[in-house]
Amino acid sequence: MKKEITIYDLAEKLNISATTVSRGLQNHPAININTKKKIFDLAKELGYQSNKFASSLRKQKTHTIGVIVPRLNSLFMSSVLSGIEKVVNNAGYNLIISQSFEQEEKEKTNAITMYNNRVDALIVSLSYDSADFTHFNNFINKGIPIVFFDRVTDSLPVTKVVIDNFKAGYDATMHLIEQNCKSIMHITGNLTRNVYKDRYEGYRKALADSYIPFSDDLFITNDLSEQEIYNAVTNNILKRKQLPDGLFATNDSAAAYALTLFKEAGLKVPEDIAIVGFNNDFISKVTEPAITTINYPGNEMGENVARILINHLDGEGDLSLTSTVILNSELIVRGSSLKSKV
Amino acid sequence: MKKEITIYDLAEKLNISATTVSRGLQNHPAININTKKKIFDLAKELGYQSNKFASSLRKQKTHTIGVIVPRLNSLFMSSVLSGIEKVVNNAGYNLIISQSFEQEEKEKTNAITMYNNRVDALIVSLSYDSADFTHFNNFINKGIPIVFFDRVTDSLPVTKVVIDNFKAGYDATMHLIEQNCKSIMHITGNLTRNVYKDRYEGYRKALADSYIPFSDDLFITNDLSEQEIYNAVTNNILKRKQLPDGLFATNDSAAAYALTLFKEAGLKVPEDIAIVGFNNDFISKVTEPAITTINYPGNEMGENVARILINHLDGEGDLSLTSTVILNSELIVRGSSLKSKV
Repeated sequence: MKKEITIYDLAEKLNISATTVSRGLQNHPAININTKKKIFDLAKELGYQSNKFASSLRKQKTHTIGVIVPRLNSLFMSSVLSGIEKVVNNAGYNLIISQSFEQEEKEKTNAITMYNNRVDALIVSLSYDSADFTHFNNFINKGIPIVFFDRVTDSLPVTKVVIDNFKAGYDATMHLIEQNCKSIMHITGNLTRNVYKDRYEGYRKALADSYIPFSDDLFITNDLSEQEIYNAVTNNILKRKQLPDGLFATNDSAAAYALTLFKEAGLKVPEDIAIVGFNNDFISKVTEPAITTINYPGNEMGENVARILINHLDGEGDLSLTSTVILNSELIVRGSSLKSKV
Repeated sequence: MKKEITIYDLAEKLNISATTVSRGLQNHPAININTKKKIFDLAKELGYQSNKFASSLRKQKTHTIGVIVPRLNSLFMSSVLSGIEKVVNNAGYNLIISQSFEQEEKEKTNAITMYNNRVDALIVSLSYDSADFTHFNNFINKGIPIVFFDRVTDSLPVTKVVIDNFKAGYDATMHLIEQNCKSIMHITGNLTRNVYKDRYEGYRKALADSYIPFSDDLFITNDLSEQEIYNAVTNNILKRKQLPDGLFATNDSAAAYALTLFKEAGLKVPEDIAIVGFNNDFISKVTEPAITTINYPGNEMGENVARILINHLDGEGDLSLTSTVILNSELIVRGSSLKSKV
């Protein structure tokens, strides 16, 4: 890199004192407006960089917020990040983003990196298998605020932003029951994570309330990858003598892929099997029939997470008073589940 | 925040000198291994943070890489970012990410923020309408490396990572011609951007090579939003007396949505209109029929961008020797375009 431009260089070229340059750059009222303009123009011309690091060191604030998420490459996650980035950027903060790749070990390493980078706050959605949360203790002990979203834990005294996954799972299942489904399958992720566990419990409650016995055969957990959904549908469900007549899948990609595979196997949706997904991703609108789903607005969740965090950092709110923020979500009925109108 | 733990606190508690603590933390060979262990254990227990900022200030390196992209919430972009993050994180760098929201003005502001944050390098995909690139001059003048990907410009002396959009556009169009399409529509984005311009020129060349005259009526540019695709299909194409028999859309979401709207209007795909998309997003696999598309691996592009940048920063490569990296992309034929087999 080339030599750094300092306020002393600016002072020398303008033939004024470094103190005047420094004050001018900070828009100090004691400095004449014409002098300020000269200082700004020269600073811009020479590519002067305000010394944020030295300044951060003095103030003990870095104006960065760390984000640890399982993976970046899902539409839901990118919508959340888009919402977070919009709010924090407008508030003058930067985001440092890292992925745990669904592994507790990587999540721990990421947490140490964020801590050593002195982030002012941390935003987390937990990895698939995280069961131990001691890697967040340093933040909590030092009073660095943390907000969890979507995949959260009750084991830590931090603020959580979620939807009511129990209710969403209940509504999705009850809708299938109302469409006369008697044998309703549920495909979901690892029950260690609240999002999947709560949806599963909603599914069970809806069955119980309707006097439909729960069957282990109708319940599949896997990592929700394309490969695993293929295996579940092609090597398991489609090989059965008695096919289910309803499917509640924990995300729209899984629902869309299952729908495609069912149709390839000659089944009719919803006549033979009615399907409900989750998230209201764009993908749920372009299958035939379109997929009934739970609207889960990632962008709004991201904006919400960022806003309560920024309010806290700016002293306008106090996170310690807020345990949980629950956002609205609702069932959107489309063709994939409407047996009654067929 | 609580009081900061310093090496002096550690020194006092362990009853050794601050110099010994400092050397121990840096794993200096002069320090006894037992002493090192005591220092590390206490540092961990008290939540000591290595003082990266002071260290960065001395070394003039921040180990952060800035990323400016149009929007985070597309599957292509999140795949690219996922690839970038994976590589830079493994190399010990952090990402600072910001969105231009497709606006030149916001892109300029983001560039200033990145510059003042002293990123070690910058990764950029240009906004929809950026025509002036002076906001990158500070980086270039100071020798801070920049890599552009996907949406790039030839106006700056920086490295670009792209696919051959001209060839991809040519292949997509030629495939439709081979399927006997005579009236091929192209829906795409702003031609200011290389990606859309090059695909458009590929489309025109394929027509010209096949003696099919280009018609302005068959060419639509818009912002590719759901609303605009709806308008183009419902209020324009479907109102025509003479419908096109082929459509080449510049992304899979647009292709999938157009396919859905054509079918709702009673048209058959591919019999009445054959469709080719772009990107090979998951969405292209779940429509009926599945969509013929250009495979454009975002994750690999992201890893590529990050790897050449890290090699440069580590002194193992020299970006100034590389003008352009062109990644492979190929046509994937599916049901949406296969008229000949119907």
